[in-house]
Amino acid sequence: MDQFSQDFRNDLTELMRWRRDVRHFKPDPVDPDVLSTCLGAFSLAPSVGLSEPWRLVQVQSAERRQNILDNFKTANAEALAGYSGERAALYAGLKLQGIKDAPIQLAVFCDEQTTKGAGLGAQTMPEMRRYSVVAGIMNFWLLTRAHGLGVGWVSILDAARATRELEVPEGWRLVAWLCVGWPKDAKDVPELETRGWERRSATPPTLYQR
Amino acid sequence: MDQFSQDFRNDLTELMRWRRDVRHFKPDPVDPDVLSTCLGAFSLAPSVGLSEPWRLVQVQSAERRQNILDNFKTANAEALAGYSGERAALYAGLKLQGIKDAPIQLAVFCDEQTTKGAGLGAQTMPEMRRYSVVAGIMNFWLLTRAHGLGVGWVSILDAARATRELEVPEGWRLVAWLCVGWPKDAKDVPELETRGWERRSATPPTLYQR
Repeated sequence: MDQFSQDFRNDLTELMRWRRDVRHFKPDPVDPDVLSTCLGAFSLAPSVGLSEPWRLVQVQSAERRQNILDNFKTANAEALAGYSGERAALYAGLKLQGIKDAPIQLAVFCDEQTTKGAGLGAQTMPEMRRYSVVAGIMNFWLLTRAHGLGVGWVSILDAARATRELEVPEGWRLVAWLCVGWPKDAKDVPELETRGWERRSATPPTLYQR
Repeated sequence: MDQFSQDFRNDLTELMRWRRDVRHFKPDPVDPDVLSTCLGAFSLAPSVGLSEPWRLVQVQSAERRQNILDNFKTANAEALAGYSGERAALYAGLKLQGIKDAPIQLAVFCDEQTTKGAGLGAQTMPEMRRYSVVAGIMNFWLLTRAHGLGVGWVSILDAARATRELEVPEGWRLVAWLCVGWPKDAKDVPELETRGWERRSATPPTLYQR
């Protein structure tokens, strides 16, 4: 099938609208088969030279989960110290991660040294490998949401420390920490907007001309 | 609507399967309303701190289109020089871009200095802004394909030169050059695979445990 209906396009747009960065999760477990189906979306993502540089680590050990929570808390305290007045009060009240709550914790790396794809397309812009990993994450995020699951992307982290503590192979670089599980509630408005931090644009981005 | 059916999930997976990096385009124009609808998918993408750092430039002037083609040719000749033997012959035979053919040429930048979002989530990992731009590109790519259009992402470029020649504001960094138009044919197998450069994985990625 390579033709898609207007109904499908409408539903796809709704999916994008309802895809959220989720920070509030129920403790309910995620069926491993559903997780595996969603992870399959990585393999359908574009990757530079077909290098498929995504590397996925599920973090289950209590010690390592505590490590990443400590890592977040340190980085978050430093971030908070950079704000003052009302912004600081607002920031302090935000819940920015579901590391303790979400049953699935995924560290997503880019293998910067992969030989797959033989370097095609990544000579002048080696960051294309990391961008390919983000493309995989987006596919995963959308399919996961279509299953009713939620994803939260945590970036308030010392990435080098997280990488070290996970003892991954040389050359892997952390792109994302994802919390995955059943969301406490479905919302089509980002929490940062509800809480008054920032607003989304209601229109397509400006198309500058050259 | 926040519930999605199994039929929708199947169609979404098909969309991901049929989404291709397109390098062969028909010269037919693209309806500006359809383009605008697809660009709206950027505004539905996740962005760190709701910073929405994507900046889109449509390149129409003949001179600037020639510039980017020259830029590609130089970078591509250098890339080719890095291969030898059969790999070099194979590389030389690949069509890796549709800069001349596709009616819509989009340079996609990240505004590294945007104040939107007040820096939330991007203190320790400022690359999150660029990753947000990639998230927007993926939303756009999927919706574009759902409309029957094709997208090709060109990365064989000197990004600094392309940025300079487009005279964009200080602090904008090139993330992608996208060729957009009607594909000559629909394929569910990547051209790099058909031509024997590299193969896609048929299974989800390995889930390493820690």
